[in-house]
Amino acid sequence: MKFGIVGGIGPASTLDYYDGLTKKYYDATGECAPLVIDSINMYAMTGLLSKGDNEGVTRLILSSLENLSAAGATAAAMASNTPHIVFDELVKRSPLPLLSIVDETCKYIEKMGFRRALILGTEFTMKSGLYSAPLEKYGIKAVTPNEKDMALVHSFIFPKLENGIVDEEDKKKMVATAERYIAEQKADCAVLGCTEIPLMIHEGDFTVPTVNTAGVHIDAIAEFMIKNR
Amino acid sequence: MKFGIVGGIGPASTLDYYDGLTKKYYDATGECAPLVIDSINMYAMTGLLSKGDNEGVTRLILSSLENLSAAGATAAAMASNTPHIVFDELVKRSPLPLLSIVDETCKYIEKMGFRRALILGTEFTMKSGLYSAPLEKYGIKAVTPNEKDMALVHSFIFPKLENGIVDEEDKKKMVATAERYIAEQKADCAVLGCTEIPLMIHEGDFTVPTVNTAGVHIDAIAEFMIKNR
Repeated sequence: MKFGIVGGIGPASTLDYYDGLTKKYYDATGECAPLVIDSINMYAMTGLLSKGDNEGVTRLILSSLENLSAAGATAAAMASNTPHIVFDELVKRSPLPLLSIVDETCKYIEKMGFRRALILGTEFTMKSGLYSAPLEKYGIKAVTPNEKDMALVHSFIFPKLENGIVDEEDKKKMVATAERYIAEQKADCAVLGCTEIPLMIHEGDFTVPTVNTAGVHIDAIAEFMIKNR
Repeated sequence: MKFGIVGGIGPASTLDYYDGLTKKYYDATGECAPLVIDSINMYAMTGLLSKGDNEGVTRLILSSLENLSAAGATAAAMASNTPHIVFDELVKRSPLPLLSIVDETCKYIEKMGFRRALILGTEFTMKSGLYSAPLEKYGIKAVTPNEKDMALVHSFIFPKLENGIVDEEDKKKMVATAERYIAEQKADCAVLGCTEIPLMIHEGDFTVPTVNTAGVHIDAIAEFMIKNR
């Protein structure tokens, strides 16, 4: 089977997906991972999201999934948290089965035994409650920053982190903001709910463990590809 | 326009192409590079090459070019030197116009004013004379290692460099081998004629300038994409 990746959202995490998947697949099988990556226009996506045009986002991603299917992919994933806002609609209309970063992350958080998860991500991800409802099904509480802090966290991601640039001043502010919620709302883990945050935040930067959503997703995709090869 | 990359040959240089193209395109346009990457089975390709089955290699690459075309690409390139052995046949049968790493490298060598170029690459690349005839058209002499040294250089590339692993002992032997040809045959530059060699050899490692074929190719593709966007 050949796996398809909707990439470019942002480019830095697409590199992590390709690197991680090819290495994990090679280590397990001694073979080359059959992959196709369609790298889409991140700014077209964020423009639609800013206007609240979720149908537009759905169509943008569907068009990429159709490209991946035409190129021979038989299953796919989006190398990004944000477009998972329209995941349920995508599942209904996608030509390919999809592996969700949110589902895999929730399973991981449950397996690790965390109970109160601080959610960090783009404003779109945090405001939409992308992680809150799915986590609730597992009896896990999502701790979400207030609107002012959402805007602050978002400003660290766009445009710098999305282009692979880590600003040390931004990092200090990110740590201070996260630590305030960890202390006040007793979060026992921090979900790096944007695939670019791990460029800035590493395990040990916070006083609680971090959940690298991109890493969890890559592991799940590699396992799926190896099982179904 | 959307550009297609035949990738996976090997995976490490596909990362360089994606990273280089997205960054150069963003710096020039402020936009996301429209790219699709089809990552093929490197071992299928080298297996066919070892049997001398050039028609098999041509078909393998054509099938990938058809995938890229189906996914919306309107021009393409192979992120590797070796399959350029069948480039002329590919041009005749490809659904997409192709940008050659060999043509771009020859133009670069001429522009730099080099006269005698040491060619380092896979055994397939060195034995086939991939660079000798094109360089001759520009009046530039290709210096090629003897059969024993070809096998040695090839052994540094497969399997370690192709999987992104740099062995320091191999590097010492690579430098010693190259310097022997530079001294004896008066080469005035060294062509890193395999897209993975730049993982090991950097400017300054040899007593003559190096020509990073992947870097030259990426620059040419970025320029083409920006001009035709």
